[in-house]
Amino acid sequence: MRNIKLLIEFDGSNFSGWQRQPKGRTVQNVIEAAISKATGEQIMINGSSRTDAGVHAREMVANFFTNSTIPGEKFREALNTRLPNDVSIIKSEEVDDSFHARYSSKGKTYSYTIVNREERLSLGYQYLYQYKYKLDINEMKKACKYFIGSHDFRAFMSPGSSAKTTVRDIKELFIEEDGDRIKIIITADGFLYNMVRIIVGTLLKVGNGRLNADEIEEIIIEGNRKKAGMCIPPNGLILEKVFY
Amino acid sequence: MRNIKLLIEFDGSNFSGWQRQPKGRTVQNVIEAAISKATGEQIMINGSSRTDAGVHAREMVANFFTNSTIPGEKFREALNTRLPNDVSIIKSEEVDDSFHARYSSKGKTYSYTIVNREERLSLGYQYLYQYKYKLDINEMKKACKYFIGSHDFRAFMSPGSSAKTTVRDIKELFIEEDGDRIKIIITADGFLYNMVRIIVGTLLKVGNGRLNADEIEEIIIEGNRKKAGMCIPPNGLILEKVFY
Repeated sequence: MRNIKLLIEFDGSNFSGWQRQPKGRTVQNVIEAAISKATGEQIMINGSSRTDAGVHAREMVANFFTNSTIPGEKFREALNTRLPNDVSIIKSEEVDDSFHARYSSKGKTYSYTIVNREERLSLGYQYLYQYKYKLDINEMKKACKYFIGSHDFRAFMSPGSSAKTTVRDIKELFIEEDGDRIKIIITADGFLYNMVRIIVGTLLKVGNGRLNADEIEEIIIEGNRKKAGMCIPPNGLILEKVFY
Repeated sequence: MRNIKLLIEFDGSNFSGWQRQPKGRTVQNVIEAAISKATGEQIMINGSSRTDAGVHAREMVANFFTNSTIPGEKFREALNTRLPNDVSIIKSEEVDDSFHARYSSKGKTYSYTIVNREERLSLGYQYLYQYKYKLDINEMKKACKYFIGSHDFRAFMSPGSSAKTTVRDIKELFIEEDGDRIKIIITADGFLYNMVRIIVGTLLKVGNGRLNADEIEEIIIEGNRKKAGMCIPPNGLILEKVFY
């Protein structure tokens, strides 16, 4: 059997997330169907991340084992011709048998984009989260530094995760501004369930003055989910890159 | 009767265009339904432009007459609470009886965004047109200047228009680059049917070397639709602004 690695871009707007479901349109279902059509085999793929409904990806990674004779790099076109517009294979290649999209991963980068404007938003609403009230971006930037490093992030996790440890190492967390867009970029060795969306929700709570930047240290130490911010909607979230 | 002016943002991805249709989901249908719910009146609105299916708007203008006592500026919230996510009222105000969104218009700005990359595109595909092959942006920029001014643009029009004259005055046409994005911005006193999409298609024909920039002058003089470029897909097109 050959091990094939895929780089996948998708628009999550019309998907019930990544993970296979008996009903519901998922990215995994759609890609597995395309592989079956291309190879004639029934194949299951391993995804690097189980993104939720509405979350997008610029570079999701997946791998699968096949007996097909299609050359590794040719899977890209073989699958793209069988995929809907909202999922694209950016690259395909044959890799070592030991490669596993999820277990081999060393880290990931996500971005989350907020539009800070008063008027209701329709253009690009599937990719953006709108926040209507004034934000203190400088306080939000100050808050970022308290998250960086290896910490127990159980205060920034939704229930339903089966993670063995709640310690994660955030390598990078910063904010880029562009007009009314506020883009938050975060890189870590891994993420707990909904961790990015809760961290961004906590940054918003700092931005609107309901939390001081220096209280984040305390929330992390206490592990108190209630003191952290809300889990904000999936729209603004993009899986940017997976590292190996 | 009071005359109310609306500024409207919409994502055209899931609409069969602006104009009311007996079947099919159109922006006009959806806004008229919201006005009827808010006022209890059966109202018809005048739109500044009849955008095609898949075309978006950052600032479409419409107006309507009403006997309702809702203050002009309050229509914004009254309608937004009754509108789906993909249409938003940005501003509402009472205007002079003589104002007509279409006939009072002095000009419009559209933008069209192309992604010039080889890999198939999924993220943002509803807002972007992908062109896979190499483009000579400098030639495209040179070509822009031949369009500017008052000319007979019958070579850049799809059949089906009822325009009395095919002369239009292009005030501005320029290209902005940002990574693999090529954004074309065009302002004119008015546009013929599909005129922006055919002009952008013609700029692509220059960019890929199948047409010289200086041949555009001849195409305009001859009025030969066949020598101009194709009418490219609606996805990349946004009505940016309407001038009065």
